[in-house]
Amino acid sequence: MSVTHPKGFAAAGTKAGLKESGKPDLALVINNGPEYAAAGVFTSNRVKAAPVVWSQQVIKDGSLKAVILNSGGANACTGPEGFGNTHLTAEQTAAALGIGAIDVAVCSTGLIGIQLDVAKIIDALPTLVEDASAEGGPAAAEAIMTTDTVSKQAVHQGDGWSIGGMAKGAGMLAPGLATMLVVITTDASVQADRLHDQLADACRQTFDRADSDGCMSTNDTVIVLANGASGITPDETEFQAALTEVCADLARQLIADAEGASHEIEIVVSGAATEAEAVEVGRSVARNNLFKCAIFGNDPNWGRVLAAIGTTAATFEPDQLDVSFNGVQVCRAGGIGEPRELVDLSDRKVRVEIDLHAGAETATILTNDLTYDYVKENAEYSS
Amino acid sequence: MSVTHPKGFAAAGTKAGLKESGKPDLALVINNGPEYAAAGVFTSNRVKAAPVVWSQQVIKDGSLKAVILNSGGANACTGPEGFGNTHLTAEQTAAALGIGAIDVAVCSTGLIGIQLDVAKIIDALPTLVEDASAEGGPAAAEAIMTTDTVSKQAVHQGDGWSIGGMAKGAGMLAPGLATMLVVITTDASVQADRLHDQLADACRQTFDRADSDGCMSTNDTVIVLANGASGITPDETEFQAALTEVCADLARQLIADAEGASHEIEIVVSGAATEAEAVEVGRSVARNNLFKCAIFGNDPNWGRVLAAIGTTAATFEPDQLDVSFNGVQVCRAGGIGEPRELVDLSDRKVRVEIDLHAGAETATILTNDLTYDYVKENAEYSS
Repeated sequence: MSVTHPKGFAAAGTKAGLKESGKPDLALVINNGPEYAAAGVFTSNRVKAAPVVWSQQVIKDGSLKAVILNSGGANACTGPEGFGNTHLTAEQTAAALGIGAIDVAVCSTGLIGIQLDVAKIIDALPTLVEDASAEGGPAAAEAIMTTDTVSKQAVHQGDGWSIGGMAKGAGMLAPGLATMLVVITTDASVQADRLHDQLADACRQTFDRADSDGCMSTNDTVIVLANGASGITPDETEFQAALTEVCADLARQLIADAEGASHEIEIVVSGAATEAEAVEVGRSVARNNLFKCAIFGNDPNWGRVLAAIGTTAATFEPDQLDVSFNGVQVCRAGGIGEPRELVDLSDRKVRVEIDLHAGAETATILTNDLTYDYVKENAEYSS
Repeated sequence: MSVTHPKGFAAAGTKAGLKESGKPDLALVINNGPEYAAAGVFTSNRVKAAPVVWSQQVIKDGSLKAVILNSGGANACTGPEGFGNTHLTAEQTAAALGIGAIDVAVCSTGLIGIQLDVAKIIDALPTLVEDASAEGGPAAAEAIMTTDTVSKQAVHQGDGWSIGGMAKGAGMLAPGLATMLVVITTDASVQADRLHDQLADACRQTFDRADSDGCMSTNDTVIVLANGASGITPDETEFQAALTEVCADLARQLIADAEGASHEIEIVVSGAATEAEAVEVGRSVARNNLFKCAIFGNDPNWGRVLAAIGTTAATFEPDQLDVSFNGVQVCRAGGIGEPRELVDLSDRKVRVEIDLHAGAETATILTNDLTYDYVKENAEYSS
């Protein structure tokens, strides 16, 4: 039941009419307390959508009581009118819930550069608030989908407390975050400051390492709400691990449903001098279109992996690089290893292992192949 | 006649049998003097092919008498055996010409990670040397083609002196250089040091700004040979302009023939605080797969341009950005401008103009769209 799995949360999803398809496009997550701790991580894109600007402001006090989310329009690059629409959405949601607008975060997703028909959102609010219930998680998760083919939900059950989460995102998935909206809830009692640090750490290891197409969105938002309804303050390490696992689960679901992808690729970089260098190398390979096309063609073209590694500033010697595809070491010491014919890339899941032989640090980047369907979906997206 | 247009150069192309297709795959350019000044610019990829390592060494003294080039194999990531093959190629070419190996640069292009059948090169050398003539430029240009559909040649005719050039490259075109081999010849008298500075400057403004797919090769090489056969030392500014124009001409030909492309895109960034920032912004847009797919779909999706600009560290305010597609300002002051329906992207050539309103510097990046055919060519390339 995703965001409504933990105690003390209600959610709903409805059809406001923002999507031409007529599918659900408006979602609400309500924190019924008793605590209202909140933390957020937002896109590092300097061109930020109006709802990102709004939500970054209202979350500053570490407290939120509700999140309203819409698909069918990103409300990005929409100027003062766009910001006014976000503000109005927060105010009207707050009024319907009997709370203050400063306790309402707003998230939007969809096409950049079109004004939202905010009247449709306001018209739909009474129904949405009325529908909100402890069973509403799946409906909310469905209402935030754009090109997603399935809704993304995750749950962690602790001892007397739990975490729930929902996510959307199927393209424009790249670090600083993926292109996505994520709401995570917990009935654990966690103070806002700690919650923020733990969310940032979880994102760094999960969403920030899901790089489907190297493109960073204007709307990325991950919000976590903690209400203490379980009466339990979990061990810090245990909660961190649980939060990270929920984020990792959602990140894997995002990559598994990425636009047009025919392979889910795990790039495991080891032997790095630092974790940051491992991430740099993994991302460089994940963003290499020639590598991504080769995987689509079931071709273990390790030369493209080496060419991508060679563009980084990471510590390594070219004649020490090892690269394996699905366990077959096709490149050994920077040169020709096992015959590439031994590699079978027909499965959807592919594991590329890179050993830099320069240290003990590792990182794993998740990505996809570059396919006809990716091109098709993104050539036709706004037309 | 490309590289044999200037006086005092001979060239040839032949079939050594390196390519399975049986097409020409071995080329030779000979400088017959009286001067032998040479300069080169090489890939900034840290994983360098054996011929790059060799050529960087032998060009250090500012002098070359010949360049031997092969397609049908990049000789990259081939270890000591690969370097030995490059060395042997240079020695045998030198022996056939009665010069020293230190005066022979070697260039290779094709698949990474396979050993060249160097015996085929050596067997073909006598014919190649015999064939070399002042009419051989076009045959040499043809023999270095890989996935190129046409050979690339350029000529500048000065007053009593001239420059000729040939290039190959149709994919993996990205800064630091494009993926390409280029040989430029001139019968002007230019000292090696000056030649190097002028070549570096020309490359910075041309090949380094042709970014087809964001992927950087292990083999990129641009070599210029100057023999003074005209007896003329051109004005420095005039020669710099001519050299830059020959490079720009070849760079445009590379982008025009890029793998699978259906649009040639010129991204003109103006109003930048520095030239480097203009280049950074242009490259960021040129490498955005969502933008490239949108152009393939004839969709002036300016939101993707802004999202790409927003990932850079360039100086700008998001609410001051202007973006035009083919002269229609679809984004004004970071928000909605003219209706996108006014934009016609049906022509092969597309011009995207970005004004950062942060200064007076400009730069133009050339790129392509991302198409089904690009994916197809690169999924099937090595199989």
